[in-house]
Amino acid sequence: MNYQKIFTEVLKKMDGYKDSGSPASYIPELRDVDPSKFGVHLITNKNKNYSIGDSEEKFSIQSISKVLSLVMAYKLIDEDLWKRVGVEPSGTPFNSLIQLEYDQGIPRNPFINAGALVICDVLVEHLENPKEEFLNFVRSLSGNSKLEYCSRIAESEKATSFRNASLINLMKDLGNIRNDIDTVLDFYFNLCSIEMTCNELTRTFLFLASNGKDLITNERFLSSSKSKRVNAVMQLCGFYDEAGEFSFKVGLPGKSGVGGGIVAILPNHYCIAVWSPRLNKKGNSSKGMKFLELFTSETELSIF
Amino acid sequence: MNYQKIFTEVLKKMDGYKDSGSPASYIPELRDVDPSKFGVHLITNKNKNYSIGDSEEKFSIQSISKVLSLVMAYKLIDEDLWKRVGVEPSGTPFNSLIQLEYDQGIPRNPFINAGALVICDVLVEHLENPKEEFLNFVRSLSGNSKLEYCSRIAESEKATSFRNASLINLMKDLGNIRNDIDTVLDFYFNLCSIEMTCNELTRTFLFLASNGKDLITNERFLSSSKSKRVNAVMQLCGFYDEAGEFSFKVGLPGKSGVGGGIVAILPNHYCIAVWSPRLNKKGNSSKGMKFLELFTSETELSIF
Amino acid sequence: MNYQKIFTEVLKKMDGYKDSGSPASYIPELRDVDPSKFGVHLITNKNKNYSIGDSEEKFSIQSISKVLSLVMAYKLIDEDLWKRVGVEPSGTPFNSLIQLEYDQGIPRNPFINAGALVICDVLVEHLENPKEEFLNFVRSLSGNSKLEYCSRIAESEKATSFRNASLINLMKDLGNIRNDIDTVLDFYFNLCSIEMTCNELTRTFLFLASNGKDLITNERFLSSSKSKRVNAVMQLCGFYDEAGEFSFKVGLPGKSGVGGGIVAILPNHYCIAVWSPRLNKKGNSSKGMKFLELFTSETELSIF
Amino acid sequence: MNYQKIFTEVLKKMDGYKDSGSPASYIPELRDVDPSKFGVHLITNKNKNYSIGDSEEKFSIQSISKVLSLVMAYKLIDEDLWKRVGVEPSGTPFNSLIQLEYDQGIPRNPFINAGALVICDVLVEHLENPKEEFLNFVRSLSGNSKLEYCSRIAESEKATSFRNASLINLMKDLGNIRNDIDTVLDFYFNLCSIEMTCNELTRTFLFLASNGKDLITNERFLSSSKSKRVNAVMQLCGFYDEAGEFSFKVGLPGKSGVGGGIVAILPNHYCIAVWSPRLNKKGNSSKGMKFLELFTSETELSIF
Repeated sequence: MNYQKIFTEVLKKMDGYKDSGSPASYIPELRDVDPSKFGVHLITNKNKNYSIGDSEEKFSIQSISKVLSLVMAYKLIDEDLWKRVGVEPSGTPFNSLIQLEYDQGIPRNPFINAGALVICDVLVEHLENPKEEFLNFVRSLSGNSKLEYCSRIAESEKATSFRNASLINLMKDLGNIRNDIDTVLDFYFNLCSIEMTCNELTRTFLFLASNGKDLITNERFLSSSKSKRVNAVMQLCGFYDEAGEFSFKVGLPGKSGVGGGIVAILPNHYCIAVWSPRLNKKGNSSKGMKFLELFTSETELSIF
Repeated sequence: MNYQKIFTEVLKKMDGYKDSGSPASYIPELRDVDPSKFGVHLITNKNKNYSIGDSEEKFSIQSISKVLSLVMAYKLIDEDLWKRVGVEPSGTPFNSLIQLEYDQGIPRNPFINAGALVICDVLVEHLENPKEEFLNFVRSLSGNSKLEYCSRIAESEKATSFRNASLINLMKDLGNIRNDIDTVLDFYFNLCSIEMTCNELTRTFLFLASNGKDLITNERFLSSSKSKRVNAVMQLCGFYDEAGEFSFKVGLPGKSGVGGGIVAILPNHYCIAVWSPRLNKKGNSSKGMKFLELFTSETELSIF
Repeated sequence: MNYQKIFTEVLKKMDGYKDSGSPASYIPELRDVDPSKFGVHLITNKNKNYSIGDSEEKFSIQSISKVLSLVMAYKLIDEDLWKRVGVEPSGTPFNSLIQLEYDQGIPRNPFINAGALVICDVLVEHLENPKEEFLNFVRSLSGNSKLEYCSRIAESEKATSFRNASLINLMKDLGNIRNDIDTVLDFYFNLCSIEMTCNELTRTFLFLASNGKDLITNERFLSSSKSKRVNAVMQLCGFYDEAGEFSFKVGLPGKSGVGGGIVAILPNHYCIAVWSPRLNKKGNSSKGMKFLELFTSETELSIF
Repeated sequence: MNYQKIFTEVLKKMDGYKDSGSPASYIPELRDVDPSKFGVHLITNKNKNYSIGDSEEKFSIQSISKVLSLVMAYKLIDEDLWKRVGVEPSGTPFNSLIQLEYDQGIPRNPFINAGALVICDVLVEHLENPKEEFLNFVRSLSGNSKLEYCSRIAESEKATSFRNASLINLMKDLGNIRNDIDTVLDFYFNLCSIEMTCNELTRTFLFLASNGKDLITNERFLSSSKSKRVNAVMQLCGFYDEAGEFSFKVGLPGKSGVGGGIVAILPNHYCIAVWSPRLNKKGNSSKGMKFLELFTSETELSIF
């Protein structure tokens, strides 16, 4: 399929589209991004590449990293992982804390903050140098040995992160955090600080479009069954409490971040990444979601 | 693919499987079913048929009907439907009532009881003879003009249904029920009372495996886009608060009922139905879910 | 103490007080009341009487009746009553339904709607002619044999009362309603429909200011211990989720109704009733609360 | 009234009483207390003293301290205090976190942990040496210049206190904590670490039995109006989610601590303290509550 041509069609349909919402504002590094930025990159699992706009510009991938830490933890402890974190959608946002209490410290899924903190705790427990090893893992996925944490972003996150401190202390109280709180938080803030371009992002996630094996390098990063399951978790939980809306309108497993990035996957076909900093009320990129909705309508291809 | 052979493989793997849970017990018609019943039927969208066990025996499809009433309401009022009901998963069960209050009477999705009642209200509003017209619609989908409501089951449901009366009164209070409460409840109990075999069930839902068009009769029941969206809603919301688990393990959009039936769809390939009355704690067929999990593992085909 | 003089002092302090809020509007009988009405009556347990304003005008006492039905049920089944309803404050209003679910159908206290419905269920269970016998009981308390239900108000309540139907159905589902739902609701609407003047109201509640025994007629309506306990329940639960505020500012056990009435008691001293139809956000009379706050400040007498 | 004689009567009635529950076990200092300890002391506001059992033995007063920190903060910033903390009962315990979220970080009352932390934050903000000045205040109330913090208990609390860290971080996130989290927590753990005897406890709280003025020394610690209001807050919120039960059975404003102590007040009459380490399910002293229930029944004196 000629995706470049489809990109053109979609952009034509978006003519007159009025972007809404604002970039995340809780740290300067996100607040000060030019809100008109817009980039798209698509890579097929046969290594065809298509892009538009600011697809070569780096942005903070934020929560999108949580898929990669999940993959790493899943490889390490297999299905035992699910004793400490669930795979169910989270319902409404105001429930996060009560559900943690009600469920005795077991977060609903690995992508809400509480769940991502548990995943970090697993990695801190099983890795000798979690920060270093995680970075190396992401580098190997992306084929880019120069990827780095952004310490400025990590520091900003840390300075404002009372909510995450609240969550991790509650889970520690309920017995689902095994390591030192500050160590786990530090790791968490670092992994969310990575910056990538749309191009790098699709390359990094391509293995999930082909059952865990990178078809370009032929390296297997995850078993086929686990790869499908990570996609399933993204489908159900990848967009905060807007997972239903994204499934309904876009129809692809994916993950968003408050930096305005979204990565999505059509299994056996492609991985696509979009970036546009303005967020809707649920914290997902407004324009990014619109673009993907029109894109899957135009291609008439989704998982459904 | 030779699905019959795969059925055999799966059954072999289930050798030694110990069924657990009990059939639903709140009405005699469900309580008195032989809990050892087990049937499977698969139909491809090229009309190949495969089955095992009690696939020709009728059982109460219960909530599985809610997909069909959704389809009918969606055809009638298009995207306006989503002003009155959401497409997000419901979170934990104990939240149902508080979420209704918090969301001002808008149910999270069309498959929780509150949502299905709103769908019934829509049909009562827009159809002249809702019960008759809905039955005719199901008959046309199934190609079986003899399908009937089971009045015995409908009566039993009505006699025990204080919870549904509580829900519909709350929504009436909040302005999201427009018709007479008793009329809507009567319609609701009837539509949940339909009985089908696994064979009939797959035939009825086959159009959702081919973008809304029945490839055998060439009749279009739903637009391609709406058909995909119904599948998306099933994926996210079809299994009460076990949607994540089903997605994770089975990886197909589907819908379960407390009669022990499950229908699931692999878009562009097939529709499968299983029936086994013992339910797990979340109200889904234990053995049915296990069978489907092994089945999609064996075929290595899912939407992910 | 010369309460009449204190009334004058308080009114002087309220000079310039700007009443706020609106009368209850969900039924015409409450909506159409003149919002500027204001009456006060105080009776000591030595039968001294003091009043100001519209103290001889009848108004709908609404939830204030719930104290009287509680008294009657408590006499009938003693401490067994507390197996079916609690004595704890209700917390925030949006919790009512979830707490009922969480607590398995046991309402937090007899004054929230759910609790008052359970009390009605108790009376329907133990009385031959609940409506008649309850009315006679209220007549005997008030010394006024002409008190009547107001059928017009009862009918209006019934026509709008989907929320109460929701609550009672939920409790029926959870096993805490033993009688026919419509019978209990009919009784409930009637008992809330009684109209009294401030004067009649204080006379009716006077027995709670003297340990259950009417010191004027010397008739004992309730044991001393039970009378104190009813006061305790009023103190903790008599003002919806504003019980703390009322205790804090007024410092007397009392009960309010959405008709704008408040009755309050200083044990061993007096019973006071105020009436002013404008309600604050919590559903209690704005001006009535202000008057009582200044009144207990001026007298320097409260239970604390 | 001869309270010593009444003590004897009550003990006679408790003959055969089987104590239940266990001492708090989350820190060694509470866990290792002899669970059979039992002491009572009553002081009238005319300085008559009555006691039984282990009334001269020190125990950890724990949350009872929260009344004293409230008094100190209330003196410092008057009614402005209630912008940062409410006066309403807290409902069920599992709500604590969700209510904090829902109410934007404003705790329901000053006695739940979240509220007590806000009170500490107020004191840290307005005092130069909060720990020293608070201790001096308690010493002046008690007339005992040798009272000390117990650093061993404070350290134990700190080591296990992830739940409090969770609460304070959540409130910091929501803007209701103004000082450094560790400073506030350190102050909080210290103030809960004070040890007193029943005798010392009643002496310390006696001013609340006489409108804020110690009638023995004639020193005024709090205005009459504020003193009544502190009693009102104790009445509504002093026993976690068992405030209704305590009001209902005992009928006095009071405050309990997980060390097994309870202090209660009959305004214009006396202050009483009981100590017995076994706690019921709600965290209040089982035997202490029973004793007080029988005591107020026997005296036929309560605020109701």
